[in-house]
Amino acid sequence: MAVGTVPFPAMPAIDGIRLGTAMAGIKQANRRDLVVVEIAPDASVAGTFTRNAFCAAPVHVAKDHMAICQTRGTSPRYLLINTGNANAGTGIAGRRDAESCCQELARLGEVDPAMVLPFSTGVIGEPLPMDRLLAALPEAVGALDDNGWQQAADGILTTDTRPKGVTVSIEIDGQPVTLNGIAKGSGMIQPDMATMLAFVTTDACIEQPRLSEWLGSGVQRSFNSITVDSDTSTNDACLLVATGRGARIDGDAAIQRFRNALDEVLISLAQQIIRDAEGATKFVTLDVSEARTEQEARDVAFTVAHSPLVKTALYACDANWGRILAAVGRAPVEAFDVDLVRIDLGDVRLVEKGGRAPGYTEEAGSAVMAEEEITIRIRLGRGDAGTTVWTSDLSHEYVSINADYRS
Amino acid sequence: MAVGTVPFPAMPAIDGIRLGTAMAGIKQANRRDLVVVEIAPDASVAGTFTRNAFCAAPVHVAKDHMAICQTRGTSPRYLLINTGNANAGTGIAGRRDAESCCQELARLGEVDPAMVLPFSTGVIGEPLPMDRLLAALPEAVGALDDNGWQQAADGILTTDTRPKGVTVSIEIDGQPVTLNGIAKGSGMIQPDMATMLAFVTTDACIEQPRLSEWLGSGVQRSFNSITVDSDTSTNDACLLVATGRGARIDGDAAIQRFRNALDEVLISLAQQIIRDAEGATKFVTLDVSEARTEQEARDVAFTVAHSPLVKTALYACDANWGRILAAVGRAPVEAFDVDLVRIDLGDVRLVEKGGRAPGYTEEAGSAVMAEEEITIRIRLGRGDAGTTVWTSDLSHEYVSINADYRS
Repeated sequence: MAVGTVPFPAMPAIDGIRLGTAMAGIKQANRRDLVVVEIAPDASVAGTFTRNAFCAAPVHVAKDHMAICQTRGTSPRYLLINTGNANAGTGIAGRRDAESCCQELARLGEVDPAMVLPFSTGVIGEPLPMDRLLAALPEAVGALDDNGWQQAADGILTTDTRPKGVTVSIEIDGQPVTLNGIAKGSGMIQPDMATMLAFVTTDACIEQPRLSEWLGSGVQRSFNSITVDSDTSTNDACLLVATGRGARIDGDAAIQRFRNALDEVLISLAQQIIRDAEGATKFVTLDVSEARTEQEARDVAFTVAHSPLVKTALYACDANWGRILAAVGRAPVEAFDVDLVRIDLGDVRLVEKGGRAPGYTEEAGSAVMAEEEITIRIRLGRGDAGTTVWTSDLSHEYVSINADYRS
Repeated sequence: MAVGTVPFPAMPAIDGIRLGTAMAGIKQANRRDLVVVEIAPDASVAGTFTRNAFCAAPVHVAKDHMAICQTRGTSPRYLLINTGNANAGTGIAGRRDAESCCQELARLGEVDPAMVLPFSTGVIGEPLPMDRLLAALPEAVGALDDNGWQQAADGILTTDTRPKGVTVSIEIDGQPVTLNGIAKGSGMIQPDMATMLAFVTTDACIEQPRLSEWLGSGVQRSFNSITVDSDTSTNDACLLVATGRGARIDGDAAIQRFRNALDEVLISLAQQIIRDAEGATKFVTLDVSEARTEQEARDVAFTVAHSPLVKTALYACDANWGRILAAVGRAPVEAFDVDLVRIDLGDVRLVEKGGRAPGYTEEAGSAVMAEEEITIRIRLGRGDAGTTVWTSDLSHEYVSINADYRS
């Protein structure tokens, strides 16, 4: 299942980026499961990674390699992504496997191994099938092309039902600047720093420290504001590559324009993940305002977003405002005056003054719940901070997917 | 569904306690939904209540009435419990309804209204059907009897599939002391201070401050150590009544014996709730040790217990240790060295040194997962604090119950 239709966009080439894929048979035969992204020399690369303490071997290696490049004043030249196997919970052997993959791609691309960043997604705890993976690498490298976006978006999927991509073009000083992003993920999603895997590239010219800062704040408003099931993956990563072949982003106006475009890309990918969440039948926007701090607003939003009772009511199209109220009431908010709280479902006021709003009717609530896209607005009445979080419902299909699939 | 069989015990009378029930037709016809518990004068009564900010009208009123009794040097004489309607999210009108119920029972019992403590459970946000409830009160009062335990246990259920009761007898200074407890609850369970509704009585003689202290610490190890779905109800309450007709509990040995018996009652009721959790097919014990603090152990245990991916794997009888590892890894633990963590499923070592244990086989893991009762032991390797938490799995049936039932 998935909510709405989001056709994969026609993605233009990004000067300095080529993509190639292969079918390595990592978990299944006859599906693209290996992706190589080639980056022109001297690009700026920023990344954010999972905060899961049991983070996967490729996450360790990617972070180490980025640090080495930075120390040497060079920049990464290849991203190597496999699906079907997360190379997580694999201990020392997993680290060695991730390094070996980098070495082999480095040999084929004639670069230093530290210039290769590895990413894996799929089953936790199985050793990477190194023979099959390494054997398919030359094919992926041979396929490198600047129009490989859709194949690459396909090649990183796991339980996703559709590829996720977005492209945005802006003009800076009369020069076109393009941003392309692809992502994967539909379960084990509460990134808490980046989603499962997302790769965003641009031809703009931006120094690394700025790129890193802009990615960090963009991720907070996008991938860190979504949740499917409160589970943070061991492999989450979001990479942002600026090849520097196009316009230089400098000056307040240009920076603002570029950052808006970047946020648009990140939010689009994050929302595409939620629309394709495991078993999702609803796309739910939780808008919390009038909080004392943004953290407080996030605490309330995520408490509601994670509530199995709210999520099953959404699945049932049941305007069960009592469950929303109960979830808000158990959020970790100090000195909470519930009489000031107002909760709206779409345009329908559900709750005020500590109970059901006087004008509320079951019919009005049910009409909103019947929609595929639902907004729940929670005003706390205690400040002026707020946040927006996106989530999905909890369906029979979610249970089936996760009871059947070995992730 | 429910895990295992737990026959309702033959519960002896408690001197100073009588119970009566009636069918008020609050939500459904022809089921016991109204329970009156009469307490002899001069009993000690202690209670713990939900911390949900949107707590229900009866919770406010019960707390107020207990405070009034304490100020006046009297003690509560009646508990009035209804199922089918939580009287939560009902604002001022709900408070008035709860007070009116107390007034009517006080009139029938010829006591002060502040000596009646009201409790409600069921649908949130609907007004209490006062006419039907008040009309049935005389019948419940007329039925008061010291052998009404099973009917009372039946009369407080909602989505529970079976009544929950326990009785423990000990001897203090040659005198028998009895503790009887009943409880209800199977969803919206992460009490965070007391379960849905639990009523424990004893004929022992204990001053109120001590009773309160012993209840508080017993609840922490029992009702505050279970979770079905992380949702804390608006109506949770646990009452402990000591009628004082029997032995006086004094002196270290007697106190220890009584507190052990009290903990046994509370833990039995808490475990009965988990065995009867909505859609449960598994009874899962999470044993976390070698933590720096008990809070840290609880954080890890509840992170695993709430993980939808762990819960669906349990439902599928899938020894998916990667999901347990991923959940442990995202627990809020500072400076977490995952190489020291060991995870056992029953007697089978799953994880050590940051990955799958060398001797682990899928067959051994699957054999444990096939059981109805499963223990997961997580040793953090960083201290000597620990905790035990009980939980259930996440099944299709859980989604069905909560997508169909208006709680």
